[in-house]
Amino acid sequence: MNRPIQTYYPPHLRVCFGCGTDHPRGLHIQTLWQDGQGICRFRPAPDCHGYPGMAYGGLIACLIDCHSVGTATAATYEAEDRAPDSAPPVIYVTGTLTVRYLRPTPLEGELVLRARCREIRGRKATVECAVFAGEMECARGEVVCLRLQETDLPQTDA
Amino acid sequence: MNRPIQTYYPPHLRVCFGCGTDHPRGLHIQTLWQDGQGICRFRPAPDCHGYPGMAYGGLIACLIDCHSVGTATAATYEAEDRAPDSAPPVIYVTGTLTVRYLRPTPLEGELVLRARCREIRGRKATVECAVFAGEMECARGEVVCLRLQETDLPQTDA
Repeated sequence: MNRPIQTYYPPHLRVCFGCGTDHPRGLHIQTLWQDGQGICRFRPAPDCHGYPGMAYGGLIACLIDCHSVGTATAATYEAEDRAPDSAPPVIYVTGTLTVRYLRPTPLEGELVLRARCREIRGRKATVECAVFAGEMECARGEVVCLRLQETDLPQTDA
Repeated sequence: MNRPIQTYYPPHLRVCFGCGTDHPRGLHIQTLWQDGQGICRFRPAPDCHGYPGMAYGGLIACLIDCHSVGTATAATYEAEDRAPDSAPPVIYVTGTLTVRYLRPTPLEGELVLRARCREIRGRKATVECAVFAGEMECARGEVVCLRLQETDLPQTDA
């Protein structure tokens, strides 16, 4: 899997403001799957601050959310021993999102998120995700992802 | 308190992407304090979807985050029996954010968030927040807010 897992999402679902590859003005959060870990690199927009000089906490939550869902998706394809472009597509939504803000996250520079899928059980996948600015861990998240069938989703146009 | 609590934040801190009244392109999340409850009304942008027709979960997290901090701030002024423009300013940051997504949140229409400050103890305020679309509760959040002194914050320019 050399491309971000989001590029394998079913075409009509690539609309997410956070991670949809087809969203014209979204955040385009990307998850690379490397050695059993989801890696995301992201550089916040210069005006995406909470307090002066600090990244907006809501943005950190968005990054953890989409990247953890991406990590659960990649981990599930691996657990099922099949390629991410095989059918049926693995589709998750967020059930519960928890973010602990450990310290202020600097706005400048690149953030790196490292996520691991701790458990896949039935419809649930639990992902742990850490947010680093350089060597400094700034936030830690846990996301419980719920697996859907494609038919569970509304068929409306985006 | 007839104005949103965010309009009482110290001027140099009104820069938050989520709720800063001075942010030129932010979300401008607003908290009104009514009868011991924080009320927020918000209409998502038409392209802020997660899956087609559903509001982006990261946006829901942003709303809960900023509105809960606003609710903690208003509740603290009330608990201290003083006006929100009195000194020193009450300043909170988010310590922990938890969001349970109960069902898909429709993208169309107005969302209403109702938040209550469950406890203020020392530096910590704990807020519970529910997100409604019409009569339907779509998400539920809990935010542990940490109180800061103004001098705890970096003095950098936004």
